[in-house]
Order: sequence, then C-alpha cells, then structure tokens
Amino acid sequence: MATVKLIEYEDASSDVREIYDDIRAFRKTDFINNFWKGLANNPEQLRRTWTGIKEVMAPGALDPLTKELIYIAVSVANKCEYCIHSHTAAARAKGMSDEQHAELMAVIGMAHSTNGLVTSMQLPVDDAFKVEAAAP
Amino acid sequence: MATVKLIEYEDASSDVREIYDDIRAFRKTDFINNFWKGLANNPEQLRRTWTGIKEVMAPGALDPLTKELIYIAVSVANKCEYCIHSHTAAARAKGMSDEQHAELMAVIGMAHSTNGLVTSMQLPVDDAFKVEAAAP
Amino acid sequence: MATVKLIEYEDASSDVREIYDDIRAFRKTDFINNFWKGLANNPEQLRRTWTGIKEVMAPGALDPLTKELIYIAVSVANKCEYCIHSHTAAARAKGMSDEQHAELMAVIGMAHSTNGLVTSMQLPVDDAFKVEAAAP
Amino acid sequence: MATVKLIEYEDASSDVREIYDDIRAFRKTDFINNFWKGLANNPEQLRRTWTGIKEVMAPGALDPLTKELIYIAVSVANKCEYCIHSHTAAARAKGMSDEQHAELMAVIGMAHSTNGLVTSMQLPVDDAFKVEAAAP
Amino acid sequence: MATVKLIEYEDASSDVREIYDDIRAFRKTDFINNFWKGLANNPEQLRRTWTGIKEVMAPGALDPLTKELIYIAVSVANKCEYCIHSHTAAARAKGMSDEQHAELMAVIGMAHSTNGLVTSMQLPVDDAFKVEAAAP
Amino acid sequence: MATVKLIEYEDASSDVREIYDDIRAFRKTDFINNFWKGLANNPEQLRRTWTGIKEVMAPGALDPLTKELIYIAVSVANKCEYCIHSHTAAARAKGMSDEQHAELMAVIGMAHSTNGLVTSMQLPVDDAFKVEAAAP
Repeated sequence: MATVKLIEYEDASSDVREIYDDIRAFRKTDFINNFWKGLANNPEQLRRTWTGIKEVMAPGALDPLTKELIYIAVSVANKCEYCIHSHTAAARAKGMSDEQHAELMAVIGMAHSTNGLVTSMQLPVDDAFKVEAAAP
Repeated sequence: MATVKLIEYEDASSDVREIYDDIRAFRKTDFINNFWKGLANNPEQLRRTWTGIKEVMAPGALDPLTKELIYIAVSVANKCEYCIHSHTAAARAKGMSDEQHAELMAVIGMAHSTNGLVTSMQLPVDDAFKVEAAAP
Repeated sequence: MATVKLIEYEDASSDVREIYDDIRAFRKTDFINNFWKGLANNPEQLRRTWTGIKEVMAPGALDPLTKELIYIAVSVANKCEYCIHSHTAAARAKGMSDEQHAELMAVIGMAHSTNGLVTSMQLPVDDAFKVEAAAP
Repeated sequence: MATVKLIEYEDASSDVREIYDDIRAFRKTDFINNFWKGLANNPEQLRRTWTGIKEVMAPGALDPLTKELIYIAVSVANKCEYCIHSHTAAARAKGMSDEQHAELMAVIGMAHSTNGLVTSMQLPVDDAFKVEAAAP
Repeated sequence: MATVKLIEYEDASSDVREIYDDIRAFRKTDFINNFWKGLANNPEQLRRTWTGIKEVMAPGALDPLTKELIYIAVSVANKCEYCIHSHTAAARAKGMSDEQHAELMAVIGMAHSTNGLVTSMQLPVDDAFKVEAAAP
Repeated sequence: MATVKLIEYEDASSDVREIYDDIRAFRKTDFINNFWKGLANNPEQLRRTWTGIKEVMAPGALDPLTKELIYIAVSVANKCEYCIHSHTAAARAKGMSDEQHAELMAVIGMAHSTNGLVTSMQLPVDDAFKVEAAAP
C-alpha cells in the first residue's frame, strides 16, 4: 500500500488533468501509471517531473534506448523496485532485446563487484584519470 | 592511503605478472592502474576480475561505449569515487563526447530523483509492467 | 516472512516484558509493532534501542515532528520499506499534514537528484563551505 | 578534480550567465558555488535544477530551515560529501544552532541503526501502519 | 514477478544443464534456487558467477560460516531482500545459532549507526589509521 | 574539514572527560580518535555510542575479530571512508592476517555483484528460504 493516495483522472483537479492529458497524448495511450497518480498529490511536483522527464529522455546525443538502460542501471543500484519494473518495461517497449538485457545485467553485476572491491581498498585515483575535461 | 599494498610489477609474483602482461597487451599500454595493483594482493581475485571484465565489457549486443556509460551510472549511484574517475576516463577514451556526458548526467540526476520519489511513496508496481519476459 | 521470530508478550521473558510494558505506558497504547517483537530476540538490543529512541526522539532543539520528517528522509534514502511506513504513520500521528508530506517528498526528490549530479561530477568542496563550526 | 569543467561567469554563454545572474540576485551574493559551475556544461540542466531548487526550497508548509535539515539527512544517507558540506553551511546560514545540528545527527544515527536492523530482520509492515492516506 | 524468465532444468540448454548438474552435485541436493534460474538467461554469466562463488566461499583463511555472516552484512547494507533470505538460510545450514544471528544483527545495527554519524560529521581519517599495509 | 568541531580532552566538559577516560582505560591507550572527538559535541550521543559499542563488540557468540570483519563489510557497502580505515586498523590490531583481509574483500566483492544481479532480476524468494526461525 502506498503512503500517498493515488489520484485517478476522475478525481483530479484541472491542473493535474492537464498533465495527465499531456502524458496520454505524448505516449499515445490512455494508461497513466501509478508514479504519476502518486505525484499528483503535489501538482507542482507532477508538472516539474513530467517536464523534466520529457526533456531528459528525449533523443539527443544519446538515443532513447541507451537512456533507458542507464535509468535501469541507476534504479538497480538505488534498489527501487517500482523503477526497475517500469523502466525495464519501457526499455523493452523501445526495443531492448533479451541479449541486450542480459548484457546490461552483466555490466551491472560487474560494476557492483568492482565498486565494492575498490571501496574496500580505498584506492587513490591514478593521475592518469585526472585529465582535464574538454572545454564545452 | 589505500588499506592494501599496491603491488608494482617489479615486486609481483609470476602469476600476477602474467595477468599484468595480459592487461598491457590487451590495452596496448604499459600503464597498470591502481585497481589491479590492489587486487594483486589476491592473485585469484585479480585473475577472476580481469577475466570477468574482459568478458563483460567486450562488444556484444551492447557496444563498448554504452557499457561504459552504464558502468559510470552504477558507480555514481554506488558512490565509488575511483570508479567514477576511471570509467569516465575510459568512456572518453572510447569516444564519449561532452554532449553525451552531459546527457548521461542528466539521466543519472533524473533517475535519482524519481528513485527517491517512488521510494517515499512506496508505490505498488502497475500490472502493466509485470509482463512476462520473452523466452530466451 | 521475517528472518527472526516475532516475540509476542505472552511468550516473552520478564526482561522483554519490562520493555514492552514501558513501550505501552510511554505510547499510551497496547499495540507493540513488529520492530520491537523482532528485536526482542536480543533483549539487550531491545533495551538499548528503546532507550536510544526515547532519548533521540524527545522534544529538544528540534520538535518531534521535525525529527520524524528527518527519520523518514533517511529511511527513504536507505530504502527501508518498513521504516518508511512506520515513520510516515508516526509523522501523521504527530500532525504531519498532506501539504507537509508533499513538501517533504519534494525535498527528498530534489536532494536525490542533486546528490546524483554532484557525485557524477566529483566536485571539490568550495572553500566557502569549509567554515569552522562554532564552538559548542 | 572534477570530471567536468567548471564554467566561470567570464567563460559562460549568455543563457548560462542569465541563470548565474538570477542566482546572484536571488541569493544576494556574487558567489557562485561549484555545483552551478559544473551544471553549466548543460545549460538546460542548469536551468531545470535552479528552477526546481527555488520551487522546492521556498517557504511553504515546511519552513526553509526544516527543508535544509531534510536535505542534509538525505545527503548523508546518500554519502554525498559536497552536498553535506554545502547544505550544512546553508542550514547554518538559515539559523541552525549547534544544538539543532547535534540533534539532527542523533536522529540520522538512530535512523541508520534501525534501518539496518529492520532490513536484516525483513519485517512485515504492521497493518496498523497501512492506514489510507487522507484525500488531498 | 521477476524481470527475467526463470529457466527450469527441463527447458535449459546443455551448457546451462552442465552448471545445474554441478550445483546439484556440489550442494548434494536437487534444489536449484531462483538465483541460478535467472542467471541462466546468460549462460556465460551463470558459469562465471557459479565458478566465482565456489572459489570465494570455499574454506580458507576465513571459515565458511564467517563468510556467510559477511555476505549477510553486505546484503543488508545493500538492501537485497532475496540475498538476505538466501544467505541467512545458508548461514543457518552452516550452523549459525540464534545467538550468533542476534549478535550479527547487533553489529550491523551499530555499524549503520556509526556510518551515518561519521558521514554527517565528515571526519578526517586519523593518521594512526593510515598504517602501511603489511607486504603480502 | 569536519562539519563539527573536534573536542580535545583539554577543552572538554567533565561528562565528556569521563567518557574519554573510560575509552582510554578500556583501550589501554591515551589515543582518542576523531570519531569520539566529533561525537563529544553531543555528550549524550557520545555516552550512548560508547556504551553501545562496548556492549556490541564484546566477545560473545561471535569473537571480536569476526565482529570487526562484519563491521568493515557494512562500512564498505555504506561507503564510509573513515569507518573503513578505522575498522580495518582495528581488525589488524585484533590479528587479521593479510590472507583474511584478502578473503574478506573477495566476499565483499562477490556479495556486491550478486546483490546487483538479484536486484536487477527482481527475483521472488524461494519458499525453501522462508523457513521458520528457531525459537529463541
């Protein structure tokens, strides 16, 4: 059970409905998932998050599927069950194959392992890795 | 200062040198970074990790740069300073542009935000996200 | 299912019953929640935790509701489902309004976002933030 | 050393300067801390984050100091060194006393402890904590 | 519901069956738990993980039960529900008593508490703790 | 630089000095490490933590070295740099050999890896792992 009420379209205020309408139009489906229904308790948060997601996940220097894979990786490391399910579903919808999913998990597993090993050894960063970032 | 001794090539046993030689040959550089010098305290761990890294990070259904981006994302969520530096350097070496880096960070920031929001709301997973994974 | 037995009052030893009695008297309710029933497997841990909670959560320089909000924030960042539910219920019992809950979640979401962004950028701390703490 | 270039005002594009100007005006200081200088590599991210911070941290149902305490708590649980320093400084600037800081840390320490204990016990959530959230 | 298909022995490829057979022979039981059934979607990952587990968890300078206690501690701090259940069961099978379990949890709780306190205080490491690790 | 003042013996109140004296007597050394000097800003927290540490880390069903290994494991997973250094030093002082340290790190690395893999797969807990805990 959620710690907040899930706001259905019928019970939503007009500013929430406006965002719901945009989600539906943008995603070409009537389905509104629980994430948005929970955020709707704070219409400003709902708007800010939806606007941000659209900006961040749009095609750019990285393609949308790569962005979903990164989103899954963060959600796994942050142990967010709902997020893992929703973004794994989103990645499949954007074309993630079983082979890609398997390799994603292999990288996640390897990264967790070396993260733990490095942290236990408290290694100093090699000078070679401290290269100046290229100018923007 | 590390919690373990960093083993230089000159001080390494023959089984460690064998792995160091393979790292150098595989990466076409004499540089051995601190991660391997620390792992060398446990030659079995050194071998297992190096073998695993080569398998996991090889080109496959995902390209090597995408794998580095995923590696960075996990390392950020796991707060591993050394790993963030080493894999950001690796991603740049594999062609990550400043634009790609900026978008990677934007996805990481957004994912952290929604991970926190979702966890605070304790949302039930929508049935629509519980689709049966495709058969392998 | 828990990894430990949940100890009911009827099955508890006298030193556990003593703590249960104090919890009931202090909270003015017969209800003992699962947290204490699990800790009761280690009566010393039960006593130490209950004593500590009473000290830490008492009114002081911070009021009890503010302390519950902080407790929720930590529990979300640490992904403790039980703790999020129990402390959200406690905060409501101490007067947390829906508006306060919504703002709490907004801060949690924003903090997670900037935590992730900062960690990915590995920013040096500005000198201006390294001010000497005031003498106690 | 940061993994991104820190953009000074002099080197910034006009859209970045516009945000920097707003930060300076809003905060009544010329000081721009490293967080914004790093975000400036992605002007959209800079704008989105600054706009969000202003919305979220504004006085509302929770006062600004309480919001800073919550921000510190999340940053500690997420192990963000820079964030802990910057928001501890911000909380002091908003009036946090040493006594309040000490109590904040006591709650953080206690919450971490019980988070760990609860997670190790894998406790089921008591029905009493699953109360329906009040309608918004 | 898992995000991957769980591969039963009957549906497994010959290379997966080979690992399953080794798990069964090594553990002297027909039972294959869900972890391996999930990993089997990536036979290389299955083999690498099973080989690694056998190497790492074998008796050595630390006894197998001590290794399970450490495994539980990491799994709790990493909030992995499945791992906490499976390794608590494994520790019991290797002789963990209720008293040992209770003390394990007490150390986990205390470590979480001081981890949180230390992080909030951003303490510099005492020179006395920076002793050179002994040569291997 | 710490976010709190480090309280030296000379500057401490009598109740803090009492705890410092006990630490020195108990540990048979004049050395007070920064952890206690930071906690001393809140004498109640100092007393509670020192009392708790003495209870939890005392010999019992688990020996003191095993408890230190568990403490290190949690501190690594929680990314507490100071704690990793202080408890690695403490473990060495209690007799941890380089071989034991290497095996500890191998278990930590393996546990992190499988924690990440399991979380990404969202595996249901096998019924076989849900055995009733033995009565206390």
